[in-house]
Amino acid sequence: MTLSPLEKTGILIEALPYIRQFYGKTVVIKYGGHAMTNCDLKRAVMQDAVLMHLVGMRPVIVHGGGPEITGMLKRLGKQSEFIQGQRVTDAETMEIVEMVLVGKINKEIVTNIHRYGGKAIGLCGKDGNLIEARKQLAHIQQEDGAEVDLDLGFVGRVERINPGIIETVIAEGYIPVVAPIGVGPEGESYNINADLVAGELAVALKADKLVLLTDVEGILADRNNPGSLISALEVGRVPELIRQGVITGGMIPKVNCCIRALEGGVKKTHIIDGRIPHSILLEIFTDTGVGTMVVPG
Amino acid sequence: MTLSPLEKTGILIEALPYIRQFYGKTVVIKYGGHAMTNCDLKRAVMQDAVLMHLVGMRPVIVHGGGPEITGMLKRLGKQSEFIQGQRVTDAETMEIVEMVLVGKINKEIVTNIHRYGGKAIGLCGKDGNLIEARKQLAHIQQEDGAEVDLDLGFVGRVERINPGIIETVIAEGYIPVVAPIGVGPEGESYNINADLVAGELAVALKADKLVLLTDVEGILADRNNPGSLISALEVGRVPELIRQGVITGGMIPKVNCCIRALEGGVKKTHIIDGRIPHSILLEIFTDTGVGTMVVPG
Amino acid sequence: MTLSPLEKTGILIEALPYIRQFYGKTVVIKYGGHAMTNCDLKRAVMQDAVLMHLVGMRPVIVHGGGPEITGMLKRLGKQSEFIQGQRVTDAETMEIVEMVLVGKINKEIVTNIHRYGGKAIGLCGKDGNLIEARKQLAHIQQEDGAEVDLDLGFVGRVERINPGIIETVIAEGYIPVVAPIGVGPEGESYNINADLVAGELAVALKADKLVLLTDVEGILADRNNPGSLISALEVGRVPELIRQGVITGGMIPKVNCCIRALEGGVKKTHIIDGRIPHSILLEIFTDTGVGTMVVPG
Amino acid sequence: MTLSPLEKTGILIEALPYIRQFYGKTVVIKYGGHAMTNCDLKRAVMQDAVLMHLVGMRPVIVHGGGPEITGMLKRLGKQSEFIQGQRVTDAETMEIVEMVLVGKINKEIVTNIHRYGGKAIGLCGKDGNLIEARKQLAHIQQEDGAEVDLDLGFVGRVERINPGIIETVIAEGYIPVVAPIGVGPEGESYNINADLVAGELAVALKADKLVLLTDVEGILADRNNPGSLISALEVGRVPELIRQGVITGGMIPKVNCCIRALEGGVKKTHIIDGRIPHSILLEIFTDTGVGTMVVPG
Amino acid sequence: MTLSPLEKTGILIEALPYIRQFYGKTVVIKYGGHAMTNCDLKRAVMQDAVLMHLVGMRPVIVHGGGPEITGMLKRLGKQSEFIQGQRVTDAETMEIVEMVLVGKINKEIVTNIHRYGGKAIGLCGKDGNLIEARKQLAHIQQEDGAEVDLDLGFVGRVERINPGIIETVIAEGYIPVVAPIGVGPEGESYNINADLVAGELAVALKADKLVLLTDVEGILADRNNPGSLISALEVGRVPELIRQGVITGGMIPKVNCCIRALEGGVKKTHIIDGRIPHSILLEIFTDTGVGTMVVPG
Amino acid sequence: MTLSPLEKTGILIEALPYIRQFYGKTVVIKYGGHAMTNCDLKRAVMQDAVLMHLVGMRPVIVHGGGPEITGMLKRLGKQSEFIQGQRVTDAETMEIVEMVLVGKINKEIVTNIHRYGGKAIGLCGKDGNLIEARKQLAHIQQEDGAEVDLDLGFVGRVERINPGIIETVIAEGYIPVVAPIGVGPEGESYNINADLVAGELAVALKADKLVLLTDVEGILADRNNPGSLISALEVGRVPELIRQGVITGGMIPKVNCCIRALEGGVKKTHIIDGRIPHSILLEIFTDTGVGTMVVPG
Repeated sequence: MTLSPLEKTGILIEALPYIRQFYGKTVVIKYGGHAMTNCDLKRAVMQDAVLMHLVGMRPVIVHGGGPEITGMLKRLGKQSEFIQGQRVTDAETMEIVEMVLVGKINKEIVTNIHRYGGKAIGLCGKDGNLIEARKQLAHIQQEDGAEVDLDLGFVGRVERINPGIIETVIAEGYIPVVAPIGVGPEGESYNINADLVAGELAVALKADKLVLLTDVEGILADRNNPGSLISALEVGRVPELIRQGVITGGMIPKVNCCIRALEGGVKKTHIIDGRIPHSILLEIFTDTGVGTMVVPG
Repeated sequence: MTLSPLEKTGILIEALPYIRQFYGKTVVIKYGGHAMTNCDLKRAVMQDAVLMHLVGMRPVIVHGGGPEITGMLKRLGKQSEFIQGQRVTDAETMEIVEMVLVGKINKEIVTNIHRYGGKAIGLCGKDGNLIEARKQLAHIQQEDGAEVDLDLGFVGRVERINPGIIETVIAEGYIPVVAPIGVGPEGESYNINADLVAGELAVALKADKLVLLTDVEGILADRNNPGSLISALEVGRVPELIRQGVITGGMIPKVNCCIRALEGGVKKTHIIDGRIPHSILLEIFTDTGVGTMVVPG
Repeated sequence: MTLSPLEKTGILIEALPYIRQFYGKTVVIKYGGHAMTNCDLKRAVMQDAVLMHLVGMRPVIVHGGGPEITGMLKRLGKQSEFIQGQRVTDAETMEIVEMVLVGKINKEIVTNIHRYGGKAIGLCGKDGNLIEARKQLAHIQQEDGAEVDLDLGFVGRVERINPGIIETVIAEGYIPVVAPIGVGPEGESYNINADLVAGELAVALKADKLVLLTDVEGILADRNNPGSLISALEVGRVPELIRQGVITGGMIPKVNCCIRALEGGVKKTHIIDGRIPHSILLEIFTDTGVGTMVVPG
Repeated sequence: MTLSPLEKTGILIEALPYIRQFYGKTVVIKYGGHAMTNCDLKRAVMQDAVLMHLVGMRPVIVHGGGPEITGMLKRLGKQSEFIQGQRVTDAETMEIVEMVLVGKINKEIVTNIHRYGGKAIGLCGKDGNLIEARKQLAHIQQEDGAEVDLDLGFVGRVERINPGIIETVIAEGYIPVVAPIGVGPEGESYNINADLVAGELAVALKADKLVLLTDVEGILADRNNPGSLISALEVGRVPELIRQGVITGGMIPKVNCCIRALEGGVKKTHIIDGRIPHSILLEIFTDTGVGTMVVPG
Repeated sequence: MTLSPLEKTGILIEALPYIRQFYGKTVVIKYGGHAMTNCDLKRAVMQDAVLMHLVGMRPVIVHGGGPEITGMLKRLGKQSEFIQGQRVTDAETMEIVEMVLVGKINKEIVTNIHRYGGKAIGLCGKDGNLIEARKQLAHIQQEDGAEVDLDLGFVGRVERINPGIIETVIAEGYIPVVAPIGVGPEGESYNINADLVAGELAVALKADKLVLLTDVEGILADRNNPGSLISALEVGRVPELIRQGVITGGMIPKVNCCIRALEGGVKKTHIIDGRIPHSILLEIFTDTGVGTMVVPG
Repeated sequence: MTLSPLEKTGILIEALPYIRQFYGKTVVIKYGGHAMTNCDLKRAVMQDAVLMHLVGMRPVIVHGGGPEITGMLKRLGKQSEFIQGQRVTDAETMEIVEMVLVGKINKEIVTNIHRYGGKAIGLCGKDGNLIEARKQLAHIQQEDGAEVDLDLGFVGRVERINPGIIETVIAEGYIPVVAPIGVGPEGESYNINADLVAGELAVALKADKLVLLTDVEGILADRNNPGSLISALEVGRVPELIRQGVITGGMIPKVNCCIRALEGGVKKTHIIDGRIPHSILLEIFTDTGVGTMVVPG
């Protein structure tokens, strides 16, 4: 499709009300999945972040990094074991996880943001004590029905966010890029789920919006029918939808993360399809639903 | 034309490099002609200004108001006489000129900017002594070849700009809208050509860009051929083009105004076609020429 | 009277306690009546404002403009009709009202302040959305005793003041001069009583003092006896004085305006005689009463 | 003489141009002589300083204290010896000089300024190392014509001014009051002529005006004719007037102090008659000469 | 003892946790007794203050001056009479007290702080109206058991602290040095106990610590046994210890001063032995008790 | 050795002049070698940095990481090849280098600083485009005497430092910790010698001091005699000492780095023995030489 210059400016003008609406607002984006591996999607996310920054928003990026971690562990001859979607993380694994997330993926994102005209600073939870963490046991129901708490090693939860450094770098015009590594009381590292970190950061920064990029369309009423997308989901309906098996598997923690953020004062939370290029902009600058918005109610 | 949301975000992304380039830059716009009388064009200019502001530019609007002034004078039974394109301005006319420009047109623009989501302050040259003026005699060549200086009444030229109030309101997030009325040593008002005021303001504000909206395509090498638009005109070629009759009539002072601004340190000057909607955005956000850029050289 | 230099400095020294008392205080002045038409009085008001500014006060001027508006309407062949002291204002009249107030009177005051050594910025309710207005119906008791609400056209009341731009210009050392034009939800203009605007501005700016310049001595206990001036009037006595016919006609809205300001937190309100030169300074810098102070109680 | 309130405001208005002219200007006042001992004059000087502060000037007071020092020395049974107008200052005398100047006179002035509605901070040259001093030998011509340098003890000259603390307290709205005590390299105190300190402070503070209060009318062309006051004295004429015996005795160092200040960038210097109440205000707020202005030329 | 450089840096490192703990904290020090007369102790206190400042604390010094005042009075042939430890202060005595405290001792301390590398400003209660005072009668039990209030002349108590000037000079990097002279409603001077001034200043400055330097080890459980030092004393135990004669004489007002400061929000109060060099640093930078800490409870 | 508390405070007082001297000064420290692997030395360096920060200095840490990189490469089965002391760095090696430096060592230092009471932010050259780099060819003299430029892969040199982010985090009270990874024009990573980065950062930050931690005593006049340490080395003597073989091998680039820093405006440069605990403090806070100071001359 070729647009005349005139048509193009028309599009810019259409974006005006949205730009106005989000001026000065903080948006925390959990960045992961296909959008991190596919080159075009990657570029699109970076551009989205830079554009958001330039039109006056304050984007904050929290990234995952699963596949690269697994790759590096393989190269070192280590098998990755997962329990309930969480990687069992012994000390050696933790070291690799941290090196890959902080030393590779985080800085790649920073470099790409610079490439598309923004300025970024890469941080992990250790910088300025950003993310204080504690060990998180996995609560497991065994085959015999008994419930046990399993120690998965250096798997953590957020104990406390110290957002000072984030606010400092935003105030200086940088986009903060955060690796989901927490720091324990003895200085030990913890591997934390990036969705959780994004949610807690959104609360600590009093963000207006939390956006979780996923590899699905959003929450489908009928999982076989892409047309059955639930555009807006009231928090009150969640338990029933879990019972009905509409919200299942990896989607459950994401929805819980949105609920937690809403309770913490975040205005709006979104689970969107990261496989669509510029899905973040679509969410912000158009009325088109590109996933499921989880709302209070 | 209907664009998918996806296509629309693509357009936004295309604008990224331009947004980046003009971030924080001051752009003085002379607003006049059809763009002030046609409703759609009017709205488009307001939207352009608001968008420019939101994406980090610092637009300043200087407006004319010829037709409305003539209209009001007619209602009061006064004839308008023009010499060399300048209105002969006796005291009574000056009073009307000022009332219409400052009390009507200026505030209408302010109101419209608010309507499209911006914030604006209307000013004239008396506010904060913004535009100090002196009487400007018209230099006329009579039929017998003799040259004389005619007194056209309260027609003025810019003696000095005190840009403090403009900088104050920009710093507070307002778009300044300036009526081209200057103030003389005794507090008397002067009617000044809006192009001239825009040019001098651009110099005083160390603007990056001066944009003059006109009712023509720009400067045409062959005035009968709209395809003969001169996209970029080096200052050095101007005298010859005037001799050849390529630059004539009302275009001459506009070109001189650009030259004066370039000499005063303004980076780029543009004479663009205000009859095209969003021509300002087109100029800034696309590579498409929508008029003539006057450049040093 | 010729004073020796020594005697003059004595006067300055006498003013010391008053200067100290009002240092940094905001004073909103409704400027109108004879003080706007008589040349000497005009100059005196300008000088008062400049002096107030220089000795550390923050004067804000709200002006009326009745006679000039009527004059211009006449020149255009329009009759002015008044109901209960308010001008019936059709669209054409509104246009003229606005042009005269904003484009003529407002800027004349600005120019005069500069002349006497101050710096001023002229504003109307449209600038920075300063005065949001709504249509004000006139509540009329007909001859048959029935009460009706009459639509007087573009006659408005203050819905909301956005004082940001006033505070900005004061902070930069300018005296704000405000034309009592409000802006409606659709961008339409409203003609608002200048006393009302002054009162609401005083409340919004948390002013210490509201001064209404009038063409009478103040409130007289006996209207035929200028010596019967009521220097201080407690709010609680107002209803009775209206019943007794002591407060009548145009004085009633002025007194109500003072009451409204006191309720809104303004410390002191004054209705003073604008026909006395420098009556504002007299009010502020001497113990002499030059009118009626309306006080809580 | 009783003035009507109206006449009084007229005086205030007359002061307007002077207030405007000196707004924000620094004026260093050497305060001494009768104006320090006569109660009425004392009060007048304090009021002048407070008024200057309130109308936007930045007064700085440097005081002497001769008579009180002599009095205290007498109470302690010490004789005061003077050589060329300078007190011979042994260690014990220095201790008394400092106690009287810093612990008595300085704080009395501070208290009086508070009494007349200002805020003041008393400082000596030791505070913040304000006045670094060195020993000053007296250059004497003996009876036999030989020239010798006499050591007068702790008599000093200004080596260097560190004006930081003065600027700090002015910025916070205090009037600085300075005792002319300097501090030597070993922390020892020096007694410095107050005129000299005032002159050097004026230079260091880039003051606009230096005012030396004296007990004479100014410089008289004919010392027996008070009507022969030289209102303005060009620096170039000084040597001749000294030769002619017009400028003699204690006036010579005062004139030299003015010359030094002018060379250091002070705009105007004045030697005025401190015996006239409010002579400082007279000098600043009227065109009347109350002494001799020493000017470049 | 000679330490290797290595051992020395070890000491610095040991101080780290204390430096961290007191970073940015305000500490008010009552400076008096032997520490003011012994040269080595004097130097040590100055060094302590400068070091505290350099490592980020905000020390404030309040000084006494008894012996020097008595000395000067003697030189002037005046006897000092004391009632309940307070000097009977007639007008002449007050004049001498003020001159010695403000004009001699205060500035000596300032000079010494500069000598050891700090910057200081000397102030008394008159500067910026720092200490507003009222006359303090002495409550006396006569021999016949009757209680009377004796007028001791210009002996005062603190009515109100205006700490603005203290905060100003601290913010600019100076150490404030305060002479305990208060100013009464008529500008009269009052001699106030320095402990009381220190306590009230600590409250007004929301200090973290109040340190009273004394000439004893602290509070001893058995006054004949220096080993019986009470390191920490709960406020609740004070009345009993007074009854038992453990806290007696001049220690009673010091303990009361601590209690008052604790009630006013000061975190910790200390009565320490000023005869030990660097006792202030010892108190702050080591775990060693060098006196009695009075604590809530 | 046990010191009494008194002796300890004596040591603190001895440090006073040094603390004063370095107040507010920027010190760039190249941290590497034994000091990074030995636990006690590691702790000592962290404590030194925190202490420097608390006493008002602005330390900046640049770290190496050779041994850990080699270890990780080994675990991945990659051999490390060195040419002229520089690691041949193919793309895979670069990835590992970056992960180890940025994702492991850098964040360990950050965590340790927090542990010893400071606040730190870990950065690499990609953050905020801190270190722009270009490929650095190795200039080699072959056995046959021919000189060639060898491509060692992603080995870089500093093209340009953008110190903004460093200044931002220092201003907010953080200690910046920098990994010596540069970013090329295409976003590619470069491995840069940490000494070089430290030197260039010192220049860009206008640092007062550059400290290079090494594993030797400094420069020895006679390499077999530790007592022959050259405490101060003038730049002019360097070429001769290289010719004489006194400065050899890895010391040559270190000395060159000091020279470059001195030329760039750094005041003092030091090559010190990192094997001595607290050698940085020793250098700053004592007169003892703990290595070689390279000075202009």
